[in-house]
Amino acid sequence: MRDLDAQETYLADRLGLAFDLRDLVGSGPIPQARYAPPYGVVGFGEGWWAAQLARDFALELTATGTQFVLEGGYDFGGAAGAGLYASVSGAEIVRLGFRENVEVEVPAHPLATYRYLRFLLLATGQQAELARIDRALLLERDRLRPEVGLSKNPAKFMAYSLLERTPMWVVPDRYPGLGQALQQTFSRIGKSLSFTPPPSALEFFVTALEARHEQGDPIAAVLIGDDERRSYAQEILESRVDTLIELPEPEAEGTLAKALCYWYRVAWASYYLALLYGVEPGDWEVLDNLRQAT
Amino acid sequence: MRDLDAQETYLADRLGLAFDLRDLVGSGPIPQARYAPPYGVVGFGEGWWAAQLARDFALELTATGTQFVLEGGYDFGGAAGAGLYASVSGAEIVRLGFRENVEVEVPAHPLATYRYLRFLLLATGQQAELARIDRALLLERDRLRPEVGLSKNPAKFMAYSLLERTPMWVVPDRYPGLGQALQQTFSRIGKSLSFTPPPSALEFFVTALEARHEQGDPIAAVLIGDDERRSYAQEILESRVDTLIELPEPEAEGTLAKALCYWYRVAWASYYLALLYGVEPGDWEVLDNLRQAT
Repeated sequence: MRDLDAQETYLADRLGLAFDLRDLVGSGPIPQARYAPPYGVVGFGEGWWAAQLARDFALELTATGTQFVLEGGYDFGGAAGAGLYASVSGAEIVRLGFRENVEVEVPAHPLATYRYLRFLLLATGQQAELARIDRALLLERDRLRPEVGLSKNPAKFMAYSLLERTPMWVVPDRYPGLGQALQQTFSRIGKSLSFTPPPSALEFFVTALEARHEQGDPIAAVLIGDDERRSYAQEILESRVDTLIELPEPEAEGTLAKALCYWYRVAWASYYLALLYGVEPGDWEVLDNLRQAT
Repeated sequence: MRDLDAQETYLADRLGLAFDLRDLVGSGPIPQARYAPPYGVVGFGEGWWAAQLARDFALELTATGTQFVLEGGYDFGGAAGAGLYASVSGAEIVRLGFRENVEVEVPAHPLATYRYLRFLLLATGQQAELARIDRALLLERDRLRPEVGLSKNPAKFMAYSLLERTPMWVVPDRYPGLGQALQQTFSRIGKSLSFTPPPSALEFFVTALEARHEQGDPIAAVLIGDDERRSYAQEILESRVDTLIELPEPEAEGTLAKALCYWYRVAWASYYLALLYGVEPGDWEVLDNLRQAT
Protein backbone atom coordinates (compact mmCIF):
# COMPACT_ATOMS: atom_id res chain seq x y z
CA MET A 1 0.00 0.00 0.00
CA ARG A 2 1.39 3.40 -0.97
CA ASP A 3 1.95 5.98 1.76
CA LEU A 4 0.28 9.38 1.24
CA ASP A 5 2.69 10.95 3.74
CA ALA A 6 5.75 9.83 1.73
CA GLN A 7 7.20 12.09 -0.96
CA GLU A 8 7.81 9.36 -3.55
CA THR A 9 4.06 8.66 -3.71
CA TYR A 10 3.64 12.06 -5.38
CA LEU A 11 5.81 11.12 -8.37
CA ALA A 12 2.68 9.75 -10.09
CA ASP A 13 1.46 13.36 -10.33
CA ARG A 14 3.58 14.07 -13.40
CA LEU A 15 1.36 16.90 -14.62
CA GLY A 16 1.35 18.69 -11.26
CA LEU A 17 -2.35 18.60 -10.47
CA ALA A 18 -1.43 19.23 -6.79
CA PHE A 19 -0.47 22.79 -7.75
CA ASP A 20 -3.78 23.37 -9.53
CA LEU A 21 -5.64 22.07 -6.49
CA ARG A 22 -3.55 24.20 -4.12
CA ASP A 23 -3.79 27.36 -6.23
CA LEU A 24 -7.41 26.98 -7.26
CA VAL A 25 -8.74 30.00 -5.35
CA GLY A 26 -8.23 33.09 -7.47
CA SER A 27 -7.41 31.15 -10.65
CA GLY A 28 -9.11 31.60 -14.02
CA PRO A 29 -10.02 34.55 -16.24
CA ILE A 30 -11.51 37.77 -14.89
CA PRO A 31 -13.95 40.05 -16.73
CA GLN A 32 -12.30 42.64 -18.99
CA ALA A 33 -15.56 44.41 -19.80
CA ARG A 34 -18.81 45.46 -18.17
CA TYR A 35 -21.79 43.26 -18.89
CA ALA A 36 -25.34 44.60 -18.85
CA PRO A 37 -28.06 42.89 -16.79
CA PRO A 38 -30.22 40.84 -16.85
CA TYR A 39 -27.90 37.83 -17.01
CA GLY A 40 -28.52 34.40 -18.51
CA VAL A 41 -26.20 31.38 -18.17
CA VAL A 42 -26.29 28.07 -20.03
CA GLY A 43 -23.56 25.44 -19.87
CA PHE A 44 -22.44 22.46 -21.93
CA GLY A 45 -19.76 19.82 -21.50
CA GLU A 46 -17.64 20.49 -18.44
CA GLY A 47 -19.43 23.85 -17.98
CA TRP A 48 -22.73 22.15 -17.06
CA TRP A 49 -22.41 22.37 -13.26
CA ALA A 50 -21.19 25.96 -13.14
CA ALA A 51 -24.23 26.92 -15.21
CA GLN A 52 -26.50 25.03 -12.83
CA LEU A 53 -24.93 26.73 -9.80
CA ALA A 54 -25.42 30.09 -11.53
CA ARG A 55 -29.22 29.56 -11.24
CA ASP A 56 -28.70 31.08 -7.77
CA PHE A 57 -27.97 34.52 -9.21
CA ALA A 58 -28.80 34.46 -12.94
CA LEU A 59 -31.50 33.31 -15.35
CA GLU A 60 -31.02 30.39 -17.72
CA LEU A 61 -31.82 32.34 -20.89
CA THR A 62 -32.28 36.04 -21.43
CA ALA A 63 -33.40 37.93 -24.52
CA THR A 64 -31.91 41.23 -23.23
CA GLY A 65 -28.77 42.07 -21.26
CA THR A 66 -26.04 39.42 -21.39
CA GLN A 67 -26.25 35.73 -22.23
CA PHE A 68 -23.23 33.72 -21.06
CA VAL A 69 -22.69 30.43 -22.89
CA LEU A 70 -20.25 28.04 -21.19
CA GLU A 71 -18.92 25.92 -24.04
CA GLY A 72 -17.13 23.20 -22.12
CA GLY A 73 -16.61 21.06 -25.21
CA TYR A 74 -18.23 17.85 -26.36
CA ASP A 75 -21.53 19.50 -26.98
CA PHE A 76 -21.70 18.43 -30.61
CA GLY A 77 -23.46 21.56 -31.66
CA GLY A 78 -25.67 21.64 -28.57
CA ALA A 79 -24.63 25.20 -27.83
CA ALA A 80 -24.95 26.31 -31.42
CA GLY A 81 -28.11 24.40 -32.26
CA ALA A 82 -31.44 23.88 -30.58
CA GLY A 83 -32.52 27.42 -31.28
CA LEU A 84 -30.38 28.68 -28.41
CA TYR A 85 -28.84 31.61 -30.21
CA ALA A 86 -32.12 32.57 -31.82
CA SER A 87 -33.94 32.71 -28.50
CA VAL A 88 -31.36 35.01 -26.92
CA SER A 89 -30.78 37.17 -29.98
CA GLY A 90 -31.54 40.46 -28.19
CA ALA A 91 -28.81 39.85 -25.61
CA GLU A 92 -25.05 40.29 -25.91
CA ILE A 93 -23.65 36.79 -26.21
CA VAL A 94 -20.46 35.98 -24.30
CA ARG A 95 -19.02 32.54 -24.93
CA LEU A 96 -16.59 30.98 -22.45
CA GLY A 97 -14.61 27.80 -22.91
CA PHE A 98 -11.86 26.19 -24.93
CA ARG A 99 -13.49 26.11 -28.35
CA GLU A 100 -12.25 28.38 -31.13
CA ASN A 101 -13.49 31.96 -31.19
CA VAL A 102 -14.70 32.08 -27.57
CA GLU A 103 -14.73 35.54 -26.00
CA VAL A 104 -13.32 34.26 -22.68
CA GLU A 105 -10.86 31.41 -22.67
CA VAL A 106 -11.26 28.74 -19.97
CA PRO A 107 -8.92 25.83 -20.69
CA ALA A 108 -10.29 22.31 -20.28
CA HIS A 109 -9.52 21.17 -16.75
CA PRO A 110 -11.02 18.86 -14.10
CA LEU A 111 -11.32 21.91 -11.81
CA ALA A 112 -12.78 24.24 -14.46
CA THR A 113 -16.11 24.50 -12.61
CA TYR A 114 -14.58 26.94 -10.11
CA ARG A 115 -13.11 29.08 -12.86
CA TYR A 116 -16.33 29.34 -14.85
CA LEU A 117 -18.25 30.15 -11.69
CA ARG A 118 -15.72 32.74 -10.50
CA PHE A 119 -15.88 34.57 -13.82
CA LEU A 120 -19.69 34.57 -13.70
CA LEU A 121 -19.79 35.85 -10.11
CA LEU A 122 -17.40 38.68 -10.95
CA ALA A 123 -19.21 39.55 -14.19
CA THR A 124 -22.60 39.74 -12.49
CA GLY A 125 -21.62 41.76 -9.44
CA GLN A 126 -21.60 38.87 -6.94
CA GLN A 127 -18.25 39.75 -5.35
CA ALA A 128 -19.54 39.10 -1.83
CA GLU A 129 -20.66 35.58 -2.76
CA LEU A 130 -17.28 34.88 -4.36
CA ALA A 131 -15.53 36.09 -1.21
CA ARG A 132 -17.60 33.65 0.87
CA ILE A 133 -16.68 30.81 -1.48
CA ASP A 134 -12.98 31.68 -1.56
CA ARG A 135 -12.76 32.04 2.22
CA ALA A 136 -14.35 28.63 2.70
CA LEU A 137 -12.17 26.93 0.07
CA LEU A 138 -8.99 28.33 1.64
CA LEU A 139 -10.05 26.92 5.01
CA GLU A 140 -10.60 23.54 3.35
CA ARG A 141 -7.23 23.72 1.62
CA ASP A 142 -5.41 24.22 4.91
CA ARG A 143 -6.72 20.86 6.06
CA LEU A 144 -6.49 18.91 2.81
CA ARG A 145 -3.14 19.68 1.22
CA PRO A 146 -0.33 17.11 1.00
CA GLU A 147 1.76 18.69 3.78
CA VAL A 148 -0.95 17.81 6.32
CA GLY A 149 -0.36 14.27 7.55
CA LEU A 150 -2.92 11.47 7.33
CA SER A 151 -3.96 11.71 10.96
CA LYS A 152 -5.22 15.28 10.46
CA ASN A 153 -6.13 15.20 6.77
CA PRO A 154 -9.73 14.13 6.02
CA ALA A 155 -9.09 13.92 2.25
CA LYS A 156 -6.22 11.47 2.69
CA PHE A 157 -8.31 9.46 5.12
CA MET A 158 -11.20 9.43 2.65
CA ALA A 159 -8.92 8.20 -0.13
CA TYR A 160 -7.90 5.18 1.94
CA SER A 161 -11.58 4.52 2.74
CA LEU A 162 -12.47 4.59 -0.96
CA LEU A 163 -9.68 2.27 -2.07
CA GLU A 164 -11.08 -0.79 -3.89
CA ARG A 165 -14.60 0.45 -3.20
CA THR A 166 -17.22 2.14 -5.39
CA PRO A 167 -18.61 5.34 -3.88
CA MET A 168 -22.29 6.19 -3.99
CA TRP A 169 -22.85 9.93 -3.46
CA VAL A 170 -25.86 10.58 -1.22
CA VAL A 171 -26.58 14.30 -1.52
CA PRO A 172 -29.52 16.41 -0.22
CA ASP A 173 -31.83 18.06 -2.76
CA ARG A 174 -30.67 21.52 -1.73
CA TYR A 175 -27.40 20.95 -3.60
CA PRO A 176 -28.67 20.44 -7.16
CA GLY A 177 -26.14 18.70 -9.40
CA LEU A 178 -23.61 18.09 -6.63
CA GLY A 179 -23.91 14.30 -6.76
CA GLN A 180 -23.21 14.19 -10.49
CA ALA A 181 -20.44 16.78 -10.13
CA LEU A 182 -18.75 14.51 -7.57
CA GLN A 183 -19.21 11.54 -9.91
CA GLN A 184 -17.51 13.52 -12.67
CA THR A 185 -14.64 14.81 -10.53
CA PHE A 186 -14.02 11.38 -9.04
CA SER A 187 -13.71 9.94 -12.55
CA ARG A 188 -11.59 12.70 -14.05
CA ILE A 189 -9.11 12.91 -11.15
CA GLY A 190 -9.46 9.60 -9.30
CA LYS A 191 -9.91 7.67 -12.57
CA SER A 192 -12.54 5.57 -10.88
CA LEU A 193 -16.18 4.69 -11.09
CA SER A 194 -18.81 6.05 -8.74
CA PHE A 195 -22.53 6.61 -8.97
CA THR A 196 -25.45 8.66 -7.69
CA PRO A 197 -28.85 7.29 -6.72
CA PRO A 198 -31.86 8.38 -8.79
CA PRO A 199 -34.51 10.71 -7.33
CA SER A 200 -36.69 8.79 -4.88
CA ALA A 201 -33.40 7.49 -3.51
CA LEU A 202 -34.69 5.70 -0.41
CA GLU A 203 -36.60 3.18 -2.53
CA PHE A 204 -33.45 2.68 -4.56
CA PHE A 205 -31.41 1.99 -1.40
CA VAL A 206 -33.93 -0.60 -0.26
CA THR A 207 -34.24 -2.45 -3.57
CA ALA A 208 -31.08 -2.00 -5.68
CA LEU A 209 -28.85 -4.31 -3.66
CA GLU A 210 -31.39 -7.00 -2.93
CA ALA A 211 -30.88 -9.55 -5.70
CA ARG A 212 -27.13 -9.77 -5.29
CA HIS A 213 -26.17 -8.59 -1.87
CA GLU A 214 -22.58 -9.68 -2.27
CA GLN A 215 -22.13 -8.43 -5.78
CA GLY A 216 -18.99 -7.01 -7.33
CA ASP A 217 -17.26 -4.06 -5.76
CA PRO A 218 -18.06 -3.20 -2.20
CA ILE A 219 -19.95 0.09 -2.05
CA ALA A 220 -18.99 3.06 0.09
CA ALA A 221 -21.99 5.32 0.70
CA VAL A 222 -20.75 8.90 1.08
CA LEU A 223 -23.32 10.84 3.09
CA ILE A 224 -23.52 14.62 2.79
CA GLY A 225 -25.52 16.96 5.01
CA ASP A 226 -27.47 16.11 8.14
CA ASP A 227 -31.19 16.45 7.38
CA GLU A 228 -33.94 13.98 8.18
CA ARG A 229 -33.60 12.22 4.84
CA ARG A 230 -29.96 11.59 5.51
CA SER A 231 -30.68 9.82 8.80
CA TYR A 232 -33.18 7.54 7.02
CA ALA A 233 -30.59 6.87 4.34
CA GLN A 234 -28.01 6.03 6.96
CA GLU A 235 -30.35 3.63 8.74
CA ILE A 236 -31.24 1.82 5.52
CA LEU A 237 -27.72 1.72 4.13
CA GLU A 238 -25.90 0.58 7.26
CA SER A 239 -26.73 -3.06 6.64
CA ARG A 240 -26.50 -2.86 2.85
CA VAL A 241 -23.16 -1.26 1.96
CA ASP A 242 -19.58 -2.04 2.82
CA THR A 243 -18.93 1.23 4.60
CA LEU A 244 -20.51 4.60 5.34
CA ILE A 245 -18.45 7.76 5.01
CA GLU A 246 -19.88 10.92 6.52
CA LEU A 247 -18.70 14.25 5.16
CA PRO A 248 -19.07 16.82 7.93
CA GLU A 249 -20.59 20.19 7.02
CA PRO A 250 -17.92 22.67 5.92
CA GLU A 251 -17.32 25.97 7.65
CA ALA A 252 -18.93 28.02 4.93
CA GLU A 253 -21.69 30.60 4.60
CA GLY A 254 -24.47 29.76 2.15
CA THR A 255 -25.41 26.84 -0.04
CA LEU A 256 -23.16 27.80 -2.93
CA ALA A 257 -20.02 27.98 -0.78
CA LYS A 258 -20.91 24.71 0.95
CA ALA A 259 -21.50 22.91 -2.35
CA LEU A 260 -18.11 24.09 -3.64
CA CYS A 261 -16.43 22.93 -0.41
CA TYR A 262 -17.81 19.41 -0.73
CA TRP A 263 -16.71 19.33 -4.36
CA TYR A 264 -13.21 20.58 -3.49
CA ARG A 265 -12.88 18.03 -0.71
CA VAL A 266 -13.80 15.18 -3.04
CA ALA A 267 -11.39 16.58 -5.65
CA TRP A 268 -8.55 16.30 -3.12
CA ALA A 269 -9.68 12.83 -2.04
CA SER A 270 -9.80 11.78 -5.71
CA TYR A 271 -6.29 13.15 -6.16
CA TYR A 272 -4.98 11.07 -3.26
CA LEU A 273 -6.85 8.01 -4.50
CA ALA A 274 -5.19 8.30 -7.93
CA LEU A 275 -1.82 8.36 -6.15
CA LEU A 276 -2.76 5.27 -4.13
CA TYR A 277 -3.57 3.49 -7.39
CA GLY A 278 -0.37 4.86 -8.91
CA VAL A 279 -2.20 6.49 -11.84
CA GLU A 280 -1.82 10.03 -13.18
CA PRO A 281 -4.35 12.32 -11.45
CA GLY A 282 -4.31 14.82 -14.33
CA ASP A 283 -6.28 14.00 -17.43
CA TRP A 284 -4.82 16.16 -20.20
CA GLU A 285 -3.34 13.42 -22.34
CA VAL A 286 -6.30 11.13 -22.61
CA LEU A 287 -8.83 13.92 -22.99
CA ASP A 288 -6.77 15.73 -25.60
CA ASN A 289 -7.21 12.68 -27.78
CA LEU A 290 -10.93 12.77 -27.20
CA ARG A 291 -11.11 16.47 -28.02
CA GLN A 292 -9.26 15.94 -31.26
CA ALA A 293 -11.52 13.04 -32.18
CA THR A 294 -14.71 15.01 -31.62
CA MET B 1 -29.65 -21.08 -15.07
CA ARG B 2 -33.41 -20.56 -14.92
CA ASP B 3 -35.38 -20.77 -18.17
CA LEU B 4 -37.59 -17.77 -19.01
CA ASP B 5 -39.62 -19.92 -21.37
CA ALA B 6 -40.53 -22.39 -18.60
CA GLN B 7 -43.66 -21.87 -16.51
CA GLU B 8 -42.08 -22.75 -13.16
CA THR B 9 -39.71 -19.78 -13.46
CA TYR B 10 -42.70 -17.48 -13.02
CA LEU B 11 -43.50 -18.84 -9.56
CA ALA B 12 -41.11 -16.20 -8.11
CA ASP B 13 -43.66 -13.57 -9.19
CA ARG B 14 -45.85 -14.15 -6.16
CA LEU B 15 -47.41 -10.69 -6.28
CA GLY B 16 -48.33 -10.95 -9.97
CA LEU B 17 -46.30 -8.06 -11.37
CA ALA B 18 -46.62 -9.69 -14.80
CA PHE B 19 -50.30 -8.73 -14.82
CA ASP B 20 -49.52 -5.12 -13.94
CA LEU B 21 -46.95 -5.01 -16.73
CA ARG B 22 -49.35 -6.61 -19.20
CA ASP B 23 -52.34 -4.44 -18.23
CA LEU B 24 -50.43 -1.20 -17.82
CA VAL B 25 -52.02 0.62 -20.78
CA GLY B 26 -55.30 2.14 -19.63
CA SER B 27 -54.62 1.60 -15.93
CA GLY B 28 -54.79 4.25 -13.22
CA PRO B 29 -57.28 6.95 -12.22
CA ILE B 30 -59.07 9.16 -14.75
CA PRO B 31 -60.17 12.76 -14.16
CA GLN B 32 -63.59 13.13 -12.54
CA ALA B 33 -63.67 16.91 -12.92
CA ARG B 34 -62.70 19.65 -15.36
CA TYR B 35 -59.50 21.49 -14.57
CA ALA B 36 -58.93 25.06 -15.67
CA PRO B 37 -55.77 26.04 -17.57
CA PRO B 38 -52.97 27.07 -17.28
CA TYR B 39 -51.56 23.86 -15.80
CA GLY B 40 -48.61 23.41 -13.45
CA VAL B 41 -47.09 20.06 -12.42
CA VAL B 42 -44.55 19.30 -9.70
CA GLY B 43 -43.60 15.81 -8.54
CA PHE B 44 -41.98 14.25 -5.50
CA GLY B 45 -40.94 10.71 -4.59
CA GLU B 46 -41.97 8.24 -7.27
CA GLY B 47 -43.89 11.04 -9.07
CA TRP B 48 -40.67 12.87 -10.02
CA TRP B 49 -40.31 11.53 -13.58
CA ALA B 50 -43.96 11.95 -14.55
CA ALA B 51 -43.67 15.59 -13.46
CA GLN B 52 -40.52 16.01 -15.54
CA LEU B 53 -42.18 14.46 -18.60
CA ALA B 54 -45.13 16.82 -18.10
CA ARG B 55 -42.81 19.76 -18.91
CA ASP B 56 -43.72 18.89 -22.52
CA PHE B 57 -47.28 20.15 -22.08
CA ALA B 58 -47.48 21.96 -18.72
CA LEU B 59 -45.64 24.53 -16.61
CA GLU B 60 -43.82 23.62 -13.42
CA LEU B 61 -45.68 26.09 -11.20
CA THR B 62 -48.72 28.20 -11.92
CA ALA B 63 -50.37 30.91 -9.83
CA THR B 64 -53.66 30.62 -11.75
CA GLY B 65 -55.54 27.69 -13.28
CA THR B 66 -54.64 24.26 -11.85
CA GLN B 67 -51.54 23.15 -9.98
CA PHE B 68 -51.06 19.37 -9.90
CA VAL B 69 -48.84 18.08 -7.10
CA LEU B 70 -47.67 14.47 -7.49
CA GLU B 71 -47.02 13.31 -3.95
CA GLY B 72 -45.24 10.04 -4.58
CA GLY B 73 -44.20 9.64 -0.96
CA TYR B 74 -40.87 10.01 0.80
CA ASP B 75 -40.82 13.74 0.28
CA PHE B 76 -40.46 14.54 3.98
CA GLY B 77 -42.51 17.64 3.71
CA GLY B 78 -40.94 18.69 0.40
CA ALA B 79 -44.37 19.02 -1.19
CA ALA B 80 -45.86 20.82 1.78
CA GLY B 81 -42.88 23.02 2.60
CA ALA B 82 -40.48 25.12 0.61
CA GLY B 83 -43.11 27.76 -0.05
CA LEU B 84 -44.66 25.60 -2.76
CA TYR B 85 -48.25 26.05 -1.73
CA ALA B 86 -47.77 29.75 -1.10
CA SER B 87 -46.37 30.35 -4.57
CA VAL B 88 -49.30 28.64 -6.29
CA SER B 89 -52.00 30.00 -3.98
CA GLY B 90 -54.09 31.47 -6.79
CA ALA B 91 -54.43 28.10 -8.52
CA GLU B 92 -56.68 25.18 -7.72
CA ILE B 93 -54.43 22.59 -6.11
CA VAL B 94 -54.93 18.94 -7.06
CA ARG B 95 -52.81 16.46 -5.14
CA LEU B 96 -52.19 12.97 -6.56
CA GLY B 97 -50.52 10.08 -4.80
CA PHE B 98 -50.84 7.67 -1.91
CA ARG B 99 -50.62 10.08 1.01
CA GLU B 100 -53.66 10.82 3.15
CA ASN B 101 -56.15 13.37 1.89
CA VAL B 102 -55.00 13.38 -1.74
CA GLU B 103 -57.65 14.38 -4.27
CA VAL B 104 -56.62 11.62 -6.73
CA GLU B 105 -55.37 8.31 -5.42
CA VAL B 106 -52.41 6.71 -7.20
CA PRO B 107 -51.17 3.71 -5.20
CA ALA B 108 -47.43 3.29 -4.78
CA HIS B 109 -46.17 1.06 -7.58
CA PRO B 110 -42.98 0.57 -9.64
CA LEU B 111 -45.02 1.41 -12.76
CA ALA B 112 -46.81 4.43 -11.25
CA THR B 113 -45.08 6.84 -13.68
CA TYR B 114 -47.43 5.79 -16.48
CA ARG B 115 -50.49 6.27 -14.28
CA TYR B 116 -49.51 9.74 -13.09
CA LEU B 117 -48.70 10.75 -16.65
CA ARG B 118 -51.92 9.32 -18.09
CA PHE B 119 -54.01 11.24 -15.57
CA LEU B 120 -52.15 14.46 -16.38
CA LEU B 121 -52.53 13.97 -20.14
CA LEU B 122 -56.28 13.38 -19.78
CA ALA B 123 -56.71 16.29 -17.36
CA THR B 124 -54.93 18.76 -19.62
CA GLY B 125 -56.57 17.83 -22.92
CA GLN B 126 -53.66 15.84 -24.35
CA GLN B 127 -55.76 12.86 -25.49
CA ALA B 128 -53.90 12.60 -28.82
CA GLU B 129 -50.52 12.37 -27.08
CA LEU B 130 -51.86 9.68 -24.74
CA ALA B 131 -53.18 7.73 -27.74
CA ARG B 132 -49.70 7.84 -29.33
CA ILE B 133 -48.15 6.58 -26.09
CA ASP B 134 -50.71 3.80 -25.60
CA ARG B 135 -50.43 2.62 -29.19
CA ALA B 136 -46.65 2.39 -28.90
CA LEU B 137 -46.75 0.62 -25.53
CA LEU B 138 -49.19 -1.99 -26.84
CA LEU B 139 -46.86 -2.70 -29.75
CA GLU B 140 -44.00 -3.15 -27.27
CA ARG B 141 -46.10 -5.41 -25.09
CA ASP B 142 -46.83 -7.76 -27.97
CA ARG B 143 -43.09 -8.41 -28.29
CA LEU B 144 -42.14 -8.44 -24.61
CA ARG B 145 -44.72 -10.50 -22.74
CA PRO B 146 -43.92 -13.92 -21.22
CA GLU B 147 -45.79 -15.88 -23.91
CA VAL B 148 -43.26 -14.72 -26.54
CA GLY B 149 -40.29 -17.07 -26.51
CA LEU B 150 -36.71 -15.99 -25.93
CA SER B 151 -35.73 -16.11 -29.59
CA LYS B 152 -38.27 -13.38 -30.44
CA ASN B 153 -38.42 -11.51 -27.13
CA PRO B 154 -35.90 -8.67 -26.76
CA ALA B 155 -36.71 -8.14 -23.05
CA LYS B 156 -35.94 -11.76 -22.19
CA PHE B 157 -32.76 -11.55 -24.24
CA MET B 158 -31.77 -8.34 -22.46
CA ALA B 159 -32.34 -9.97 -19.07
CA TYR B 160 -29.87 -12.73 -19.91
CA SER B 161 -27.37 -10.10 -21.13
CA LEU B 162 -27.66 -8.18 -17.84
CA LEU B 163 -27.26 -11.22 -15.60
CA GLU B 164 -24.29 -10.75 -13.23
CA ARG B 165 -23.51 -7.43 -14.90
CA THR B 166 -24.10 -3.81 -13.83
CA PRO B 167 -25.89 -1.73 -16.48
CA MET B 168 -24.85 1.81 -17.30
CA TRP B 169 -27.68 3.69 -19.03
CA VAL B 170 -26.37 5.86 -21.89
CA VAL B 171 -29.23 8.13 -22.86
CA PRO B 172 -29.39 11.13 -25.24
CA ASP B 173 -30.15 14.58 -23.80
CA ARG B 174 -33.48 14.70 -25.61
CA TYR B 175 -34.92 12.24 -23.10
CA PRO B 176 -34.52 14.19 -19.84
CA GLY B 177 -34.65 11.99 -16.75
CA LEU B 178 -34.87 8.72 -18.69
CA GLY B 179 -31.49 7.42 -17.46
CA GLN B 180 -32.43 7.91 -13.81
CA ALA B 181 -35.91 6.53 -14.44
CA LEU B 182 -34.33 3.34 -15.83
CA GLN B 183 -31.99 3.21 -12.83
CA GLN B 184 -35.01 3.42 -10.53
CA THR B 185 -37.11 0.86 -12.41
CA PHE B 186 -34.21 -1.56 -12.63
CA SER B 187 -33.77 -1.36 -8.86
CA ARG B 188 -37.44 -1.56 -7.91
CA ILE B 189 -38.29 -4.46 -10.23
CA GLY B 190 -34.94 -6.12 -11.01
CA LYS B 191 -33.69 -5.57 -7.44
CA SER B 192 -30.29 -4.71 -8.89
CA LEU B 193 -27.81 -1.90 -9.09
CA SER B 194 -27.27 0.22 -12.18
CA PHE B 195 -26.00 3.72 -12.82
CA THR B 196 -26.11 6.67 -15.17
CA PRO B 197 -23.10 8.71 -16.29
CA PRO B 198 -22.95 12.38 -15.23
CA PRO B 199 -23.40 15.19 -17.79
CA SER B 200 -20.24 15.50 -19.90
CA ALA B 201 -20.48 11.72 -20.17
CA LEU B 202 -17.76 11.12 -22.76
CA GLU B 203 -15.05 12.33 -20.36
CA PHE B 204 -16.54 10.04 -17.74
CA PHE B 205 -16.36 7.06 -20.10
CA VAL B 206 -12.71 7.78 -20.85
CA THR B 207 -11.58 8.27 -17.24
CA ALA B 208 -13.88 6.40 -14.84
CA LEU B 209 -12.64 2.91 -15.62
CA GLU B 210 -8.96 3.74 -15.94
CA ALA B 211 -7.54 3.06 -12.47
CA ARG B 212 -9.11 -0.36 -12.12
CA HIS B 213 -9.98 -1.71 -15.50
CA GLU B 214 -10.85 -5.12 -14.13
CA GLN B 215 -12.78 -3.91 -11.14
CA GLY B 216 -15.78 -5.54 -9.54
CA ASP B 217 -18.84 -6.25 -11.60
CA PRO B 218 -18.53 -6.29 -15.34
CA ILE B 219 -20.39 -3.33 -16.83
CA ALA B 220 -23.02 -3.57 -19.56
CA ALA B 221 -23.39 -0.25 -21.36
CA VAL B 222 -26.98 0.09 -22.58
CA LEU B 223 -27.03 2.48 -25.52
CA ILE B 224 -30.22 4.33 -26.42
CA GLY B 225 -30.86 6.35 -29.57
CA ASP B 226 -28.63 6.75 -32.58
CA ASP B 227 -27.24 10.29 -32.63
CA GLU B 228 -23.64 11.35 -33.14
CA ARG B 229 -22.91 11.34 -29.42
CA ARG B 230 -24.02 7.74 -29.21
CA SER B 231 -21.56 6.63 -31.88
CA TYR B 232 -18.71 8.34 -29.99
CA ALA B 233 -19.88 6.68 -26.80
CA GLN B 234 -19.94 3.31 -28.52
CA GLU B 235 -16.43 3.75 -29.90
CA ILE B 236 -15.04 4.73 -26.49
CA LEU B 237 -16.91 2.10 -24.51
CA GLU B 238 -16.25 -0.87 -26.77
CA SER B 239 -12.83 -1.50 -25.24
CA ARG B 240 -13.82 -0.46 -21.71
CA VAL B 241 -16.95 -2.38 -20.76
CA ASP B 242 -17.87 -6.03 -20.66
CA THR B 243 -20.66 -5.76 -23.21
CA LEU B 244 -22.64 -3.22 -25.22
CA ILE B 245 -26.40 -3.56 -25.49
CA GLU B 246 -28.15 -1.47 -28.13
CA LEU B 247 -31.80 -0.68 -27.65
CA PRO B 248 -33.32 -0.12 -31.09
CA GLU B 249 -35.62 2.86 -31.52
CA PRO B 250 -39.23 1.97 -30.75
CA GLU B 251 -42.04 2.29 -33.28
CA ALA B 252 -43.49 5.37 -31.65
CA GLU B 253 -44.44 8.91 -32.64
CA GLY B 254 -42.83 11.67 -30.61
CA THR B 255 -40.26 11.93 -27.83
CA LEU B 256 -42.70 11.28 -25.01
CA ALA B 257 -43.98 8.02 -26.49
CA LYS B 258 -40.44 6.89 -27.29
CA ALA B 259 -39.22 7.65 -23.76
CA LEU B 260 -42.10 5.64 -22.29
CA CYS B 261 -41.35 2.72 -24.64
CA TYR B 262 -37.70 2.53 -23.53
CA TRP B 263 -38.84 2.65 -19.91
CA TYR B 264 -41.46 -0.07 -20.47
CA ARG B 265 -38.93 -2.27 -22.24
CA VAL B 266 -36.47 -1.97 -19.35
CA ALA B 267 -39.31 -2.65 -16.88
CA TRP B 268 -39.99 -5.96 -18.65
CA ALA B 269 -36.28 -6.80 -18.81
CA SER B 270 -36.00 -6.01 -15.07
CA TYR B 271 -38.93 -8.30 -14.45
CA TYR B 272 -37.27 -11.17 -16.28
CA LEU B 273 -33.98 -10.48 -14.53
CA ALA B 274 -35.65 -10.74 -11.10
CA LEU B 275 -37.01 -14.13 -12.18
CA LEU B 276 -33.55 -15.25 -13.30
CA TYR B 277 -32.21 -14.32 -9.87
CA GLY B 278 -35.22 -16.02 -8.27
CA VAL B 279 -36.27 -12.87 -6.38
CA GLU B 280 -39.74 -11.32 -6.12
CA PRO B 281 -40.15 -8.71 -8.89
CA GLY B 282 -42.84 -6.83 -6.95
CA ASP B 283 -41.75 -4.53 -4.16
CA TRP B 284 -44.81 -4.04 -1.96
CA GLU B 285 -43.58 -5.80 1.14
CA VAL B 286 -40.22 -4.15 1.54
CA LEU B 287 -41.47 -0.69 0.59
CA ASP B 288 -44.49 -0.91 2.86
CA ASN B 289 -42.07 -1.17 5.75
CA LEU B 290 -40.24 1.89 4.50
CA ARG B 291 -43.48 3.83 4.13
CA GLN B 292 -44.51 3.01 7.66
CA ALA B 293 -41.10 4.02 8.99
CA THR B 294 -41.14 7.41 7.28
